[in-house]
Amino acid sequence: MENSPAEKPQVVIVGAGFGGLEAAKKLACEKVRVTVIDRTNYHLFQPLLYQVATAALSPADIAAPVRSVLSKCKNVEVILAEVKSVDVEAKKIKTIDMEFCYDFLILATGARHSYFGHNEWEKLAPGLKSLEDAIELRRRLLMAFEYAEKITDEAARKAAMTFVIIGGGPTGVEIAEIARYTLAKDFRHIDPSQARVILIEGEPRLLAAYPEDLSASALKQLVDLGVEVRTAARATNLTEAGVQIGEEFIPCHVKIWAAGNDASFVGKTLGAPVDRVGRVLVNDDLTIPGHPEVQVIGDLANFSHQTGQPLPGVSPVAMQQGRHAARNILAMIDGHKPQRFRYWDKGSMATIGRNKAVADLNLVHLSGLPAWLVWLFVHIIFLVGFRNRLAVLFQWAWAYFTFNKGARLITRNFQSETRPPA
Amino acid sequence: MENSPAEKPQVVIVGAGFGGLEAAKKLACEKVRVTVIDRTNYHLFQPLLYQVATAALSPADIAAPVRSVLSKCKNVEVILAEVKSVDVEAKKIKTIDMEFCYDFLILATGARHSYFGHNEWEKLAPGLKSLEDAIELRRRLLMAFEYAEKITDEAARKAAMTFVIIGGGPTGVEIAEIARYTLAKDFRHIDPSQARVILIEGEPRLLAAYPEDLSASALKQLVDLGVEVRTAARATNLTEAGVQIGEEFIPCHVKIWAAGNDASFVGKTLGAPVDRVGRVLVNDDLTIPGHPEVQVIGDLANFSHQTGQPLPGVSPVAMQQGRHAARNILAMIDGHKPQRFRYWDKGSMATIGRNKAVADLNLVHLSGLPAWLVWLFVHIIFLVGFRNRLAVLFQWAWAYFTFNKGARLITRNFQSETRPPA
Repeated sequence: MENSPAEKPQVVIVGAGFGGLEAAKKLACEKVRVTVIDRTNYHLFQPLLYQVATAALSPADIAAPVRSVLSKCKNVEVILAEVKSVDVEAKKIKTIDMEFCYDFLILATGARHSYFGHNEWEKLAPGLKSLEDAIELRRRLLMAFEYAEKITDEAARKAAMTFVIIGGGPTGVEIAEIARYTLAKDFRHIDPSQARVILIEGEPRLLAAYPEDLSASALKQLVDLGVEVRTAARATNLTEAGVQIGEEFIPCHVKIWAAGNDASFVGKTLGAPVDRVGRVLVNDDLTIPGHPEVQVIGDLANFSHQTGQPLPGVSPVAMQQGRHAARNILAMIDGHKPQRFRYWDKGSMATIGRNKAVADLNLVHLSGLPAWLVWLFVHIIFLVGFRNRLAVLFQWAWAYFTFNKGARLITRNFQSETRPPA
Repeated sequence: MENSPAEKPQVVIVGAGFGGLEAAKKLACEKVRVTVIDRTNYHLFQPLLYQVATAALSPADIAAPVRSVLSKCKNVEVILAEVKSVDVEAKKIKTIDMEFCYDFLILATGARHSYFGHNEWEKLAPGLKSLEDAIELRRRLLMAFEYAEKITDEAARKAAMTFVIIGGGPTGVEIAEIARYTLAKDFRHIDPSQARVILIEGEPRLLAAYPEDLSASALKQLVDLGVEVRTAARATNLTEAGVQIGEEFIPCHVKIWAAGNDASFVGKTLGAPVDRVGRVLVNDDLTIPGHPEVQVIGDLANFSHQTGQPLPGVSPVAMQQGRHAARNILAMIDGHKPQRFRYWDKGSMATIGRNKAVADLNLVHLSGLPAWLVWLFVHIIFLVGFRNRLAVLFQWAWAYFTFNKGARLITRNFQSETRPPA
């Protein structure tokens, strides 16, 4: 589509998440043409998505238009389109209505929720991966309170005020602070601080990927918040009316899914081997077998060469792989071989509401306020775009000192929800 | 629903726009029980809605949850519900699934767009009354640019870059600044400053309700912005492909409706006389004939007792009527008669992009920068809620100095739009 000199190799990056965006930045001003294709027009700062769901932040605070992020990279063009498949033999990418040729491809289309074969649960218990997910969850949370304010039946009100989170990983732990404090003074007939939050985890402990002392600390901090935590428990059925956990049925309106991922379907069209959840088994240099011009990064990749286990689906992995994939391309253009990737693990952290968090910094394990301050610092630093950083800091400070949430808007039609669920 | 002492009269206010909210505030801490019913959970600062559509502001910047606005008024409860009808004989209000009794009623359900009998045009040319409208329009504007970036056919690209606004009142004039400057540097294949904006007005001049010198000034300012203005012109047909204006067909993707209002259907259920567009013909004290306990205010009311003409559908009218209706209720409780309403007209204004506006302050007519500064000052002052005022000021300053727009997010599914319109 561009009239650049033909000798410049064409790089296509599919997906403008943390991995794809880092790769594009690294290739800016290099002797390549770069096309970034994404199905949304924004880069989403996913670690703060739960704050949109809990109405602490607005969608625009955690999303930056891909075009503005990359507007200074004159050799990079951005296309809004949904990629359907890759033809590795023809070196072509297919969207619904267009095709794009590449010399080098970086595939970074990420992952979606997995309902473990129960796709009918998705409507009942939405997950939290996209802005749309977060807006829908915010709507459900606020509607539950609005409904509880109107009805007089005690059992129905109790069900409306019960929130069940399925999955005790970082997302489940972070979202558990919903509905505490902030709404209390605005309702006349209900006491929002009586909201019941139940967190269900199939493993024997929360945050199974973290060290044991931090799991125990997260559990204590959640219990202090008033969250009911059930470990070694599994949701065996979901209905409009509630959640079945073994013998027990918990009546509840709002159910949130935070339990498991499926890699994007685009990975399977490469023809390379994939694992149980659809992640592409990449070589130790991020390329796929037989096709050094194709690299797969981020949540879509299964990279097990370093620890024997797949690297976790977190932003530092994706970002380091994005930069590495870009370096590999520049090396290959210069006639060198792609290099082996090594992940530098600086640690991981999860927040648990106001003042509460856990942080595994490898040498040090932090809990409570110190962990929360580290979390705050790191997330402010990495927010894409200067405006967002300031706006988010301002809104957080405001929310912190006033216990108020500014983004409590219910958009979209709600009529069907003014009736009690069937 | 509340267990307040029975002797306190029950006031129901339907609609939490400018009129309803002022009435509720005025009745706070008085010896009445107040129930505010609205079909959304937020009060919308409608005068800035076009700034959400043009991606300068986020939805949360111009909307404040009704509950938080009224949370300190302990005798006021807020109910999220859509009112279907009023039974003035039984003194009851009906929603889909509930009924509310009142001793006094303030009806303030406002207006929607009127397509003059062509309801099929609503999908083709959405208006700008609700947050959903604004988000949808923002999506269409941004999608038009994304589409133009992808295609190679010159005629199709030109149609995608042509925006037709139907209606040259304040909304039409304000939205005309779309697509100038801000997107320019982010696209590789199109030049967004080449976007063509056409404003169509049926009357011989723009802003027909304003003095003639300000109409002329608005026209000049719009032409300076590059907007094509066609007065005494009417859209005779709308299709996916474009707009028919008499003999001429203008190919364009995005059409915006800003031409005419219909009052809310709830007014017709009162049994009182209504005018051609459905507004209730109120007495000179805002009550309806035969029912002093029922008052109608704002865009839903036709109040012609002062000038012989209906008062315009602007926020100062609604706010003054809201306070007056509240005073009338307190007077009636004390055994007095409701008082005649008088509108104090402080003037009106419309903005036309950066540095440009017209303001009719009765004694003085302002244009250009002075009018714009007055407009800015007044709108900041009246924004509901302290947080919003600061956030909006911050974002405006940012947008002003950087020509950048922070809220350029396309949410919702776009797949059908990656194909050219039929």
